[in-house]
Amino acid sequence: MPQHTVRDPDFEQRVRASFERQQFMATLGATLEHVTPGEVFIAVPFSAALTQQHGFLHAGVVASVIDSACGYAALTLMEPGAGVMSVEFKVNLLQPAAGNRFVAVGRVLRSGRNITACQGELRAVREDGEVVVAVLQGTMMTVRNRDGIAD
Amino acid sequence: MPQHTVRDPDFEQRVRASFERQQFMATLGATLEHVTPGEVFIAVPFSAALTQQHGFLHAGVVASVIDSACGYAALTLMEPGAGVMSVEFKVNLLQPAAGNRFVAVGRVLRSGRNITACQGELRAVREDGEVVVAVLQGTMMTVRNRDGIAD
Amino acid sequence: MPQHTVRDPDFEQRVRASFERQQFMATLGATLEHVTPGEVFIAVPFSAALTQQHGFLHAGVVASVIDSACGYAALTLMEPGAGVMSVEFKVNLLQPAAGNRFVAVGRVLRSGRNITACQGELRAVREDGEVVVAVLQGTMMTVRNRDGIAD
Amino acid sequence: MPQHTVRDPDFEQRVRASFERQQFMATLGATLEHVTPGEVFIAVPFSAALTQQHGFLHAGVVASVIDSACGYAALTLMEPGAGVMSVEFKVNLLQPAAGNRFVAVGRVLRSGRNITACQGELRAVREDGEVVVAVLQGTMMTVRNRDGIAD
Repeated sequence: MPQHTVRDPDFEQRVRASFERQQFMATLGATLEHVTPGEVFIAVPFSAALTQQHGFLHAGVVASVIDSACGYAALTLMEPGAGVMSVEFKVNLLQPAAGNRFVAVGRVLRSGRNITACQGELRAVREDGEVVVAVLQGTMMTVRNRDGIAD
Repeated sequence: MPQHTVRDPDFEQRVRASFERQQFMATLGATLEHVTPGEVFIAVPFSAALTQQHGFLHAGVVASVIDSACGYAALTLMEPGAGVMSVEFKVNLLQPAAGNRFVAVGRVLRSGRNITACQGELRAVREDGEVVVAVLQGTMMTVRNRDGIAD
Repeated sequence: MPQHTVRDPDFEQRVRASFERQQFMATLGATLEHVTPGEVFIAVPFSAALTQQHGFLHAGVVASVIDSACGYAALTLMEPGAGVMSVEFKVNLLQPAAGNRFVAVGRVLRSGRNITACQGELRAVREDGEVVVAVLQGTMMTVRNRDGIAD
Repeated sequence: MPQHTVRDPDFEQRVRASFERQQFMATLGATLEHVTPGEVFIAVPFSAALTQQHGFLHAGVVASVIDSACGYAALTLMEPGAGVMSVEFKVNLLQPAAGNRFVAVGRVLRSGRNITACQGELRAVREDGEVVVAVLQGTMMTVRNRDGIAD
């Protein structure tokens, strides 16, 4: 595991406040579960409103919660005042996202001045245990001095 | 532009019926705009319910609609009875997804027996014209003989 | 097509000099074919030394030449003194890379202050015409004030 | 770690023979280090012939060896007679690939009938230890009954 430098001691409160402003997370019914330096978990319950045509979680929902988990993992390591935005991400769907509840994990691999590399996954919580149904690899950007872009 | 072979003459009705079953598209307010062999457009209006913390469309929403457009572009070329599932996709966010309305374009690059390669983009419709705010490259799978997986 | 701003009038000479320093391009037998603002072509002839186990061009060779074409397309738009490095890229292999000669195309989609988004492709030149055998989507970084990193 | 089913008891010999036919691996000076079900290591020494313009390993070389490691990790789990080909991969470069020697790790996340999902990384071996300089996420395809495509 990489060692991370915390540049903002109030990182958790900052991430939680930003998450509250992501209205799309509320639309998904997602909740912020765990915030430590370089690692964030987001949970989302199964809901028919989030499904694709075969009744599984839509791949875009899968991507959305892992992307947010990674973005907030990146934000835990940014200096006060900076904002985080997604540059790109790539998702591999390992199996249909079936389950009662899902937990997205986002982790920072490397936090640079302008660029943060992350990996994440989505775990489906089933009666017989947890299974990883998707993995994500992506890049986050630190945005500075741009109106309206903080946290 | 690649030449595509249509294996199911009812491809448009089939895509439209499958889209209707993607409850997540209804959650996003997305509509199916255009269905031709190897190319599908999906539109989504701006809504505060779809935003990230800075008020732009969430990157996961961006990914969701381009992924569906690509998946359905792939489905237009599949034989009757087969189902489509996303294997993986990668999105680059070129600029903040600001606009009143967005159009996702999905196109098939190559349609093989088991695997279809696609490219897509999201266009933001603004007062001064359209601008591409994201591009996607991905892979779709043809699923056969699996219960509950059709179209 | 995006409109690009040229920040260094000597962009072509600069790209050509940097390409000469990429010893791996010489190892591949690759040559720089075309350099305009935001677009670069690199050619590579078929060689058994570049093959995978079935006799086609190795996917890593495919990625290498498109990555270099995209990196140099990004460099054409950077200010004097800056260096270019690859942040990430994603390649889809559409069909086996068979042919006598290949041309990699790299194009800038958006050139920002720190980040440039690119798309590229590899065209196989065959007796009956050219065919796109791979597509790439990637991100380049502008590096400033780091020892040893220019162009 | 996922549990893998071995369908060919001679998987190691088969991977080693196929690796010998990848002439590009010889061009890179790469060697096959470790072959177990679902996991393969490939080593490559630093060489000026493999560098980009700043003297680091070219990103395409990085991609090449991780791609081969992942492809062969996938092949360890395929039935006799099947061939492996790369469908797509995505590489994030975490830091410049500087070092005396590099080890690419390829691992299977999920091995399906037609599709195998993999993750990999490149470790730079330096005097003060190993550091991960790149990560890869990709998809391999099982090819059957196609002339000239085995292993």
